[in-house]
Amino acid sequence: MNITEFVANSIGRWRSQRSVHHLAFGHFEAVQSEIDIIALLDDDPAVIDLCKTYNIDPQTVVSPFRMSWEGQSDWDENEIKGSCVLVPIPDPTHPHRGKLLRDQGYAETIAAAGDYYLTEDSTFVLVTTYDRAAAEEKIWFVNPNVRCRVSLIKTSAGTGVVTASFSSEIRQNIHK
Amino acid sequence: MNITEFVANSIGRWRSQRSVHHLAFGHFEAVQSEIDIIALLDDDPAVIDLCKTYNIDPQTVVSPFRMSWEGQSDWDENEIKGSCVLVPIPDPTHPHRGKLLRDQGYAETIAAAGDYYLTEDSTFVLVTTYDRAAAEEKIWFVNPNVRCRVSLIKTSAGTGVVTASFSSEIRQNIHK
Repeated sequence: MNITEFVANSIGRWRSQRSVHHLAFGHFEAVQSEIDIIALLDDDPAVIDLCKTYNIDPQTVVSPFRMSWEGQSDWDENEIKGSCVLVPIPDPTHPHRGKLLRDQGYAETIAAAGDYYLTEDSTFVLVTTYDRAAAEEKIWFVNPNVRCRVSLIKTSAGTGVVTASFSSEIRQNIHK
Repeated sequence: MNITEFVANSIGRWRSQRSVHHLAFGHFEAVQSEIDIIALLDDDPAVIDLCKTYNIDPQTVVSPFRMSWEGQSDWDENEIKGSCVLVPIPDPTHPHRGKLLRDQGYAETIAAAGDYYLTEDSTFVLVTTYDRAAAEEKIWFVNPNVRCRVSLIKTSAGTGVVTASFSSEIRQNIHK
């Protein structure tokens, strides 16, 4: 699977159950949300802007998309809501690797560029280094309508794991 | 990583946080447990017995081990407690693949033989087919003291996912 196929398979509306394990406290957090993933045009202004931020040629963009989420955690009463633009930039010399630009990260709400690769068994792996943390994410499809996602937030040194979270995502509106 | 290294890295006592997503109901179950993984001798009677059950030459066994667990779920008030013997039988022609015999499965409490492989990024993948269900498990190390495990229970046809669960496992007694 290449990044184009991976993004194409991800487009749609998903119902997500997410469990966050706060490892130091042994605490479980449960989050229920809806996630919308929509394709963007290569020349969408948000895509062009993000390329400028990272000084990357917009011609190298492949399958940009927008992800929006809206949900509820059992830990924090505030509604969880957000949206970000994601722009894959494949490595021209390694077709299964590349950079993923985001206009907003998970661990910190600033723009972030992560390094991705796709494994031989079609798992998308993303590693993002922030100032004070590092995030490692694995996403794979169990079938076309079920996606799993494991996210680890580590200390910036990369050794300690602070939180480990797991999402199971079920495609909605399958028969529309 | 081969199966011998994978088992060697797994030996020890682990504190496990496990979240089970019951997908049809959107229900979250939280399980906290302690897991002990101990190495067995190749000629342990439990290992020999299991080989006999599956009509497999005990000479082909590699790194057999016993896994015991004891924990508590927030859904079911009964204590969760159990133990099983696991016996890897590598495929002589594909060193990263093989069979894993168990004297007791997860999805059904009968003996089970699953097919495993190790991916190039050191994830252990196990697929087990039962009479009325199929289980797919991925286990990988984030660092020597943190292990992640994702288990999916599917309908026997293999298409529907019934439960998706995630365990984060932290090694205990690191400095003993």
